[in-house]
Formats: sequence, structure tokens, C-alpha cells
Amino acid sequence: MKALVFDVFGTVVDWRSGVARELAGYLSAIGRTDLDPFALADAWRRRYQPAMEECRSGRRPWTRLDVLHRENLETMLADHGITGADPQDLDALNLAWHRLDPWPDVLLGLHRLRRRFFLAPLSNGNIALLANMAKRARIPWDAVLGAEPVQAYKPQPEAYLRTAGLLAMRPDEVCLVAAHNGDLRAARKAGLKTAFVARPTEHGEDQAIDLAPEEDWDVVAKDFVELAAKLEA
Amino acid sequence: MKALVFDVFGTVVDWRSGVARELAGYLSAIGRTDLDPFALADAWRRRYQPAMEECRSGRRPWTRLDVLHRENLETMLADHGITGADPQDLDALNLAWHRLDPWPDVLLGLHRLRRRFFLAPLSNGNIALLANMAKRARIPWDAVLGAEPVQAYKPQPEAYLRTAGLLAMRPDEVCLVAAHNGDLRAARKAGLKTAFVARPTEHGEDQAIDLAPEEDWDVVAKDFVELAAKLEA
Repeated sequence: MKALVFDVFGTVVDWRSGVARELAGYLSAIGRTDLDPFALADAWRRRYQPAMEECRSGRRPWTRLDVLHRENLETMLADHGITGADPQDLDALNLAWHRLDPWPDVLLGLHRLRRRFFLAPLSNGNIALLANMAKRARIPWDAVLGAEPVQAYKPQPEAYLRTAGLLAMRPDEVCLVAAHNGDLRAARKAGLKTAFVARPTEHGEDQAIDLAPEEDWDVVAKDFVELAAKLEA
Repeated sequence: MKALVFDVFGTVVDWRSGVARELAGYLSAIGRTDLDPFALADAWRRRYQPAMEECRSGRRPWTRLDVLHRENLETMLADHGITGADPQDLDALNLAWHRLDPWPDVLLGLHRLRRRFFLAPLSNGNIALLANMAKRARIPWDAVLGAEPVQAYKPQPEAYLRTAGLLAMRPDEVCLVAAHNGDLRAARKAGLKTAFVARPTEHGEDQAIDLAPEEDWDVVAKDFVELAAKLEA
């Protein structure tokens, strides 16, 4: 194993709290504090997979996530009775996804892992999103990869295989680190190694999915610091 | 100006000394210390533009620089009477381009510039090359861009324009920093801002080109530390 590539939303950063925090500010500004920002964050996120599926299926050319997020935001707000918003406000709010905070173990874990492995995100986020997030949160990636340079959305096999290609490595020299069993299944099918780190509050206190590994993943760790210890980094 | 993107070979790193150093080790190992490693480095580099031109012209599909370097190495060695080399030795020697050292002002200058600007390479090098170089030399890029994610070789306009697109910026929000007037001319034509930093020994003591700015570039600085001062970073 020479490189670790990371799922980002949920695995590296707590997207739900971060997006809800920025939605709360927006709702307050427009006088709609009757709405629950966490419910809106969940509703925004529910449109994520269907929007990417349009691209995966070929019904729509590959389109970067910032654009999909922006469209989904407008639809989600309309579903909650918010229309006619200032487009510049929505542009700014859309960048909530660039300003997410890592889980508490992430920076220490990555700094240890980086001594031994090449580290990069393998996220469906676009390059500007991932790079702005990393700059703000000081996430020490060695390169910013993901869906955009490979023009494919996980779990398409091309997303994993072309990423290994960009690194000039064989798939089995690359390990995907993710909090999602489905992502790991697709990575394993493509020939990558797999590491599972549970994030039991990604979806809030009542989370029912991805609480435990569902296959014998190559590594299972409770957080990134334990992952570094298990990988002797 | 929100982002600075950098030419790498010559502007950020001293490719000639670095490649000659690794060639010297190889020539010593095969008992050919009669050959001048600097002359071989120059000969290797002379094949760089013609190889990319095959891709720019469309005669060959876009091919990453590691592959072009590897082909050029074999041809260059044959020109000097070295044939039948161990292919694994040549694979290793080809990675000399991943192991180049920055000029002495680079790291301090970039650490200052990074506080104010988004920093990325805009090099004809491929992602693995640039990322391995940055990891080894601790170059603090915010993202690793370049020819590979945009599938175009400078000075094609697409190389500059698509890079601004990946950053989600207008061309005039991006400034190319380069030691080469030709690169800056193409960047300006594409609408980017331009900064010239002379590297008067890139080609050795007798360098005759790119010793001074040939147009009124937006910024001219003697090195990256002065560049940071001029940009108030």
C-alpha cells in the first residue's frame, strides 16, 4: 500500500453540522427561524445522489458538484416555501460545502499517516471545493484528486481506477478510507484495498446505517489516529 | 487576484542540476563517466517541447509527461551510444523529474504567498510528478493542477483557461508566475495576470534567454520572497 485516498463528506468532515450551521445563519437572515436547519441540511443532501445519477447514467454530461449543489439548494428551498431568494446569497450559501470542519481525530491522524503514505481525497466533490476546504481546515493532502480530474462519480469503477492511474499506481497499491460500506464495496470490486472508519453521528443521533463494517475490510479502525497506529504510520 | 499558478521546471525547481545529479549517478554505475551529465540533461530536455508538440498538434492523443520523459530518455541515451539499458534502471532514472529541488527562495516565498493567495502549479508535469516533487521538497501547494487535469499542454490557451475554470475563477483572478516570457505571453493572451521571476542560471552559466522581462508584465520580482513583498503577502 503506497497511497491512502479518502472519502470526504462524512468520513473526513462533518458535513451535516457544517451545512446546518450555515443554513441557520441564512434562515435567521431571512426571518425563517421556524425551519430546522438540520432538516434542511438533510433535505439538501438527499438530492445529492439523484443529481450525480443523472451524470453517471449519461443522461447529463459530467457536471461538477458545485453546480449540482447550487441547483439542489434552489429546489430544496422551494420545497420549503423559500423562493425568490437573492442569487448571490445562494451562491455564498452554496459554498457551505467548502467550509466544513474535520472530525476531531482527522488532522492528527492525517499528519501521522502522511509520513508513510501518499494522501489524497477521493471524493465526489470538485477540485475547488476540496482545495478550499483543505486550505481553510489545514487538511494536509499531497494532491487534490476526486471526481473532477477523473470525470466520473463514485461508485462508478472509473472513479477508483482512473484515480490509481493518476497516481501511477496499481489499484492494489491504493487504499480507500471511507465511513460507507457501499463506497468500500465498489472500491474493492475495482481492486483497491479498503479501510473502514465508522462515523456513527454523520447523519445525527439516530443514525441507522454504516455503524459497523459489513465485510472483512482490510483495515477497520475507530478513527484516523487508530488507523495510523494500525498502519504503523 | 485570488490565485497564483506557477510554472515549475525552471521557475520553482532547478531541473538542470537535479537531473544532472541523477544522471551522474547512473553514468557512474554503468561505467560511462566520460559523458557529461549536464550535457545529457540538456539533451534530454531538448526533446521535451517536440514530444509535447505531437500532442498539441493532435498527431498523438494527450499523453502524460512521465511517459514522454521515459521515451525521450531512451532516445537521448541511444544518441549517446547507450543502448540495452535495464528498463527498470531507466524507470527509476526517469523519476529524477519527481525529485528536483526548489531554488533557495521558493519555500519561504510560497509560505508567505500562501497566506494571501491560493497556490497551485500550472506545469506541463503530470499530477504524480508534481505531487511527488511537492511531498519530497515540502512545497506547500493548495492543489496540484497542471497539464493532466486539463488535458492540454502550455502554451495552448486551454491549459490556462481550463485551469482558471477548475479553480472556479475568472482568468483575470489568476496570475501565472513564470521565468519564461513565452509562457507569460500565452497566459496574458488567455486573460491571466502575469508575474516574471528571472532564473538566470536555469540553463547554466551561459544562459542567453529569459534573463529579463520582455513585456510590461503585471509584476516583476527577482525571486519569490520579493514577489511576496510586492504582492503584500
